[in-house]
Amino acid sequence: MEYIFKLGVLAAALAGGLSAQPSVPQVERWDVFEVALNGPTAGNPYLDVQLQAEFRYRHRAVKVDGFYDGAGVYRIRFMPDEMGEWTYTTSSNRPELAGKSGKFQCTAPSARNHGPVRVAHTYHFAYADGTPYVPIGTTCYAWAHQGDELENQTLATLRSAPFNKMRMCVFPKHYVYNENEPKFYVFPRAGDSNDYTRFSPEFFSHYEKLIRALRDLNVEADLILFHPYDRWGYSKMPAEVDDRYLRYVVARFSAYRNVWWSMANEFDFMKEKTMSDWDRFFRIVQESDPYQHLRSIHNGAIIYDHAKPWVTHVSIQRDDFEKTQERLAAWRKPVVYDECKYEGNIPRRWGNISAREMVRRFWIGTTAGAYVGHGETYLDAHDVLWWSKGGVLHGESPSRIAFVRKILEEGPAEGLNPAAGYYQAAGAEGKYYLFYFDVHQPAEFEFDLPKGVKFRADVIDPWEMTITPVAGTYEGKFQLKLPAKPYQAVRFRKAD
Amino acid sequence: MEYIFKLGVLAAALAGGLSAQPSVPQVERWDVFEVALNGPTAGNPYLDVQLQAEFRYRHRAVKVDGFYDGAGVYRIRFMPDEMGEWTYTTSSNRPELAGKSGKFQCTAPSARNHGPVRVAHTYHFAYADGTPYVPIGTTCYAWAHQGDELENQTLATLRSAPFNKMRMCVFPKHYVYNENEPKFYVFPRAGDSNDYTRFSPEFFSHYEKLIRALRDLNVEADLILFHPYDRWGYSKMPAEVDDRYLRYVVARFSAYRNVWWSMANEFDFMKEKTMSDWDRFFRIVQESDPYQHLRSIHNGAIIYDHAKPWVTHVSIQRDDFEKTQERLAAWRKPVVYDECKYEGNIPRRWGNISAREMVRRFWIGTTAGAYVGHGETYLDAHDVLWWSKGGVLHGESPSRIAFVRKILEEGPAEGLNPAAGYYQAAGAEGKYYLFYFDVHQPAEFEFDLPKGVKFRADVIDPWEMTITPVAGTYEGKFQLKLPAKPYQAVRFRKAD
Repeated sequence: MEYIFKLGVLAAALAGGLSAQPSVPQVERWDVFEVALNGPTAGNPYLDVQLQAEFRYRHRAVKVDGFYDGAGVYRIRFMPDEMGEWTYTTSSNRPELAGKSGKFQCTAPSARNHGPVRVAHTYHFAYADGTPYVPIGTTCYAWAHQGDELENQTLATLRSAPFNKMRMCVFPKHYVYNENEPKFYVFPRAGDSNDYTRFSPEFFSHYEKLIRALRDLNVEADLILFHPYDRWGYSKMPAEVDDRYLRYVVARFSAYRNVWWSMANEFDFMKEKTMSDWDRFFRIVQESDPYQHLRSIHNGAIIYDHAKPWVTHVSIQRDDFEKTQERLAAWRKPVVYDECKYEGNIPRRWGNISAREMVRRFWIGTTAGAYVGHGETYLDAHDVLWWSKGGVLHGESPSRIAFVRKILEEGPAEGLNPAAGYYQAAGAEGKYYLFYFDVHQPAEFEFDLPKGVKFRADVIDPWEMTITPVAGTYEGKFQLKLPAKPYQAVRFRKAD
Repeated sequence: MEYIFKLGVLAAALAGGLSAQPSVPQVERWDVFEVALNGPTAGNPYLDVQLQAEFRYRHRAVKVDGFYDGAGVYRIRFMPDEMGEWTYTTSSNRPELAGKSGKFQCTAPSARNHGPVRVAHTYHFAYADGTPYVPIGTTCYAWAHQGDELENQTLATLRSAPFNKMRMCVFPKHYVYNENEPKFYVFPRAGDSNDYTRFSPEFFSHYEKLIRALRDLNVEADLILFHPYDRWGYSKMPAEVDDRYLRYVVARFSAYRNVWWSMANEFDFMKEKTMSDWDRFFRIVQESDPYQHLRSIHNGAIIYDHAKPWVTHVSIQRDDFEKTQERLAAWRKPVVYDECKYEGNIPRRWGNISAREMVRRFWIGTTAGAYVGHGETYLDAHDVLWWSKGGVLHGESPSRIAFVRKILEEGPAEGLNPAAGYYQAAGAEGKYYLFYFDVHQPAEFEFDLPKGVKFRADVIDPWEMTITPVAGTYEGKFQLKLPAKPYQAVRFRKAD
């Protein structure tokens, strides 16, 4: 039996100023503690061997599934959520893996580690430590299948991009501009045939490396578990393979705090699956994940019934933002327009909106009380389009998306909800209001804010990225001169 | 008995090179022949005296109502639609007005006189002589109530504006930016009280002058018969007054070829009226109008059931152009988005869209197989906003609307219908297609036109007003390079 000291552990230990290896392993809160065990290699360990551990903190116990990682190595990964001493004991149908026990010390999280993201205030998100999380996502569906050079370039791009969430597929993608073969396969593959009874450890260890790299950039990994764009067979596996795949993925990835589960992209385009398959997938993930990471499902034409209890938030492909209020009311969950078409110039309708239109959609969605996701599809001589393969960004919207992200992060911690009685405004009652005027260009406008509260006002130009304070304070009904330009916003914040 | 030689009659006579007064009056086709008779002044002629005439052309007879014009003068106006000799005989409940007869010669129309506009090809319009009519309307609700100076300025503006239809109220308007008293009242008025048993000839003769002035500019007068913006009582008259008013208006105005009837603006905002009132108003106009001018009704929040047989075309306030196909299919009538909000900068949502957005809406509506109307509401120190009072235009959309009008008038005579299978395209099957890309900016696009027909292509920039021919001819499926700019259009015309 051996401890695997992950990066975070070492960092915590070094940060603690310890000169010698600690007698008890230390893991920072919401980081990964991993137990690696040597075990049987005979037969098919993926099918034959069961391994779990029970982690205990005082009177609390958390059961965690282990997984086989090939070459006789079994692993159990755990994300502690309480500081202090944790103990664990393994159980298995193989005696050599059962009854192993140990302990570790969970230490304070480092400055940039806020834990996993949860739903907060019904329609919004926050990290586990209470820090608000404003999802500003992008999509690179198949970036994890492009090889080190392009993957490193994608990570380098993300370092200075405004995005804190990445939608990414586990399986490789076959689609227009996506004809290349992946470097790794999820299952061992010979010719055109997959061995669905085993997994490929090299695929998973590579994929985990990217999840960790995103985590280190504070980017949530919104993992898409199934999708229809397939030439390898992954979209039409037997049900027992689907289920085993889900359990294996959850066992391997769920200890990473930045993981989100998206059951599928365009689930309704997967003709081999029924609605009860999708319900079952949700339940398997919900039952298997000790940490209850966020769970969603992304539509093509048909929107899944988000009232179902295992859905934590709405991740939809739509640009009918005017329906946001009814969606919030119907589902009482955060609404994220993860795909509202992409900035770009390809011949497809979903992939050629202008940068200005993309920015406009961020503002419309935001002031409707929802969140909006980015994507980019500019034609490229080598078919490297950000939306699928990553690489570099060419568009003009990301800098403006950074601007709106900053505004939202400086906004009220409880998030922006639709402001009653206004057409395109969201706020936090009595404290904060954000108006967006879209194609409207009033030279003056009558606002009607609460009486007895003084507000400061700013005129915001979302494209020019300017914030112009308006002199004075305001309350109740009042008229304000505005720039008589389209696509402007006005922000009101309670005066201190 | 005397003939009133109207302008058109004299012009026709002079154009004919006649040096002496013709022995038989001459009226050009679709112009006005008027019979004026002296009759009783005692009692209340508006209520007591009935007057009609039967006009005959060969074996055909047309019955026309006359009207009392005050000061003992009764008039019967008639718009002949066939060239040749017409005769007429009057009838009345007063012997001195009955049995008068005469004849006139209907001559060929002058060059700019194409007759009244009719529905053509189910979803489109044409003048009675077959010339296609592409409605490019504007709105100046209360321009006829502003006095000569402003009214003349409005007419001068129209002389070089792109509009060939004017939406205008019969009654004066009370509303924001519309506080002034009208110069003339429809009914004699003393203090706050209207004499609903009489009409005011001076109001009508003034209003007719404006209808004729529009006619001479080839602008259709889309007359709004009722509206809710009222401080004088006209929106809540008794039913018998409503009905008498309608019959009087039809008797006076219907001989002008450029008249259209709009039962109301925002009919559903008139709380005193029921749906059966509106049905009755339509029937009265339909029964009374010998020429069957176009009839519509304009909504606020609730759209009237346009399937009703007396509605000739759809005149709606909406900007949900994406519903055009279902509206065309449901009603099988032309769809005109007469109010899709106004270019301007006032504080109201309906009156502050940008010029670019107004132009965009013209293109979206056009390529959906519908028609779009203009309006303008820029703040003015003297509250002279085009949308209501007329005056001058300040906006940037009219020149671009002239551009789209020219394109449509050079298009297929049968009009543009939604092109099946395309998102934003309309055309005439096998001959002509107009695509609009809205916020989309493809660098290339695959078109799928009929095989066996060669098309020439043009790239159109609706804002810059450029038409750039693309080299070559095209048929079937083909790829075309496009400017990768938003808001572009592409036109295909069958090569000669």
